[in-house]
Amino acid sequence: MSRPALPARVRIVEVGPRDGLQNEAAAVPVADKVAFVEALAAAGLPSVEVTAFVNPKWVPQMADADAVYRGVSRRPGTSYPALVPNVAGLERALGVEADEVAIFAAASETFSRRNINQSIDESLDRYGDVARRAAIAGVRVRAYLSTAFGCPYEHDVPIARVVDLTERLLALGAYEVAVSDTIGVAHPGQVWDVLDALLARVPADRLALHFHDTRGTALANVLAGLQAGMASFDASAGGLGGCPYAPGASGNLATEDLVYMLDGLGIETGVSIERVAAASRALAPLVGHALPSRYQQALRRGDVKNQA
Amino acid sequence: MSRPALPARVRIVEVGPRDGLQNEAAAVPVADKVAFVEALAAAGLPSVEVTAFVNPKWVPQMADADAVYRGVSRRPGTSYPALVPNVAGLERALGVEADEVAIFAAASETFSRRNINQSIDESLDRYGDVARRAAIAGVRVRAYLSTAFGCPYEHDVPIARVVDLTERLLALGAYEVAVSDTIGVAHPGQVWDVLDALLARVPADRLALHFHDTRGTALANVLAGLQAGMASFDASAGGLGGCPYAPGASGNLATEDLVYMLDGLGIETGVSIERVAAASRALAPLVGHALPSRYQQALRRGDVKNQA
Repeated sequence: MSRPALPARVRIVEVGPRDGLQNEAAAVPVADKVAFVEALAAAGLPSVEVTAFVNPKWVPQMADADAVYRGVSRRPGTSYPALVPNVAGLERALGVEADEVAIFAAASETFSRRNINQSIDESLDRYGDVARRAAIAGVRVRAYLSTAFGCPYEHDVPIARVVDLTERLLALGAYEVAVSDTIGVAHPGQVWDVLDALLARVPADRLALHFHDTRGTALANVLAGLQAGMASFDASAGGLGGCPYAPGASGNLATEDLVYMLDGLGIETGVSIERVAAASRALAPLVGHALPSRYQQALRRGDVKNQA
Repeated sequence: MSRPALPARVRIVEVGPRDGLQNEAAAVPVADKVAFVEALAAAGLPSVEVTAFVNPKWVPQMADADAVYRGVSRRPGTSYPALVPNVAGLERALGVEADEVAIFAAASETFSRRNINQSIDESLDRYGDVARRAAIAGVRVRAYLSTAFGCPYEHDVPIARVVDLTERLLALGAYEVAVSDTIGVAHPGQVWDVLDALLARVPADRLALHFHDTRGTALANVLAGLQAGMASFDASAGGLGGCPYAPGASGNLATEDLVYMLDGLGIETGVSIERVAAASRALAPLVGHALPSRYQQALRRGDVKNQA
């Protein structure tokens, strides 16, 4: 068959320094986190999620959030979101002059209660406060909708609920909702089904897709999303991270792997795969394990140079 | 978007006992290889490549080919191909009453010379002899066309050459050609381009696709193939194997990972993912390393039970 129509350009939102490092056991020094963020931005990533302004009692890896955020030399034109769970977090983000914040809701009631100790409705009320104050401060808000393709506790998540919550998050003021496969169970048919319902109500440019490669389907799901017209995807440099509260949430889609496929498809990203790979490799000794990215595995075996 | 039309049923050709074990350093006892083949057939795989009748000087892992092939209790309706490089190999296969043999040609001249020490034309002459004698003996012939999506030495491989060699292999008498991404470089756009050219000349039911997950793109490539109407795919239980002569050839697509996606898509395979996974796990201690299959990784982390 001839190639189906795909977007000419894709925006990649880099989540490694936050979603990735939040889930690593090792303590990474502030200076190294700052260097990681700066290297990823220099690699051409248009948005690099820097950190999370959360309670260090729950997420000790992000206790240095203020120092990391202040430490980053920002490039003009690059966004540097920070995750905020509530207005207190937003105030901390405003204190370091963050240009964008991210909020994090769930499509599964059980997951919401276990992950953020609130019902979905309670969390949306709270995020409404965050979004209103962010709007006054001129700070953009991005939203994650987690467990949109499956929940470790409730398993199936109704598509109607995903659509409803996406619309509510946009109505709160989010410029984009990252519809997220938190536990990496999605398959391309499900991606088409969810997007078929979502795109009947919401334009594609208000949506992103956030896949985990837990079962190896992440790039197939990206391909399904591209065919549906999606042009914004989350990825984590080196494949770092997951979610500490979700069984099976390991395996963020690696930025290198995503860029490899998009480069092959001739889709412009503005991102240098070599520079992303170098940024990940510089961080790898500090997390204490080999990077799960398939592209990095191929680099380690010396394979990639053969295709240079 | 609505789901595109996909085949209702897919045939999976299991290559783990041959392509997988051929590339493992560990010596696996005959009885364990036999049990592996039998378990995979019992899991519902319609074709299980058992072994290779090759010179043990070059491939010591297959020195037990006769004993393994004779040891397998065959199920009615299942195919048990064996790789044969030449007429001598075919005679050995006939000696154990093999029902099918596989031949192995390359789409890259350099790869052909380095892998099988012959030019492409020389190898096709030789395979013509194999196919003629196989036809007389009533044995089916399947063909691999390796490096069809890229070569570790020549890099790009012209699509016209892939089409020409596929037609020549079919003309020799192969019932199916497995168009193979030996080094795992393919991306879905390339799959569409290659199939666009191939399917203009050859019906889909004479073609299979053989992907490696070296860079994480295997399932995306399968999805692209399905959309083009392809319904025969190779996979290796547990993700075992690769090719010892190809830099970067590690990373056969795991049967479990393929079945996970096809199950999700509602495409019938007749294969039990649990039984394939159990067969791979039974073999894992004998190869001395964790299985690379993503589904197996998720099982090891205890993730999969949550989606049961």
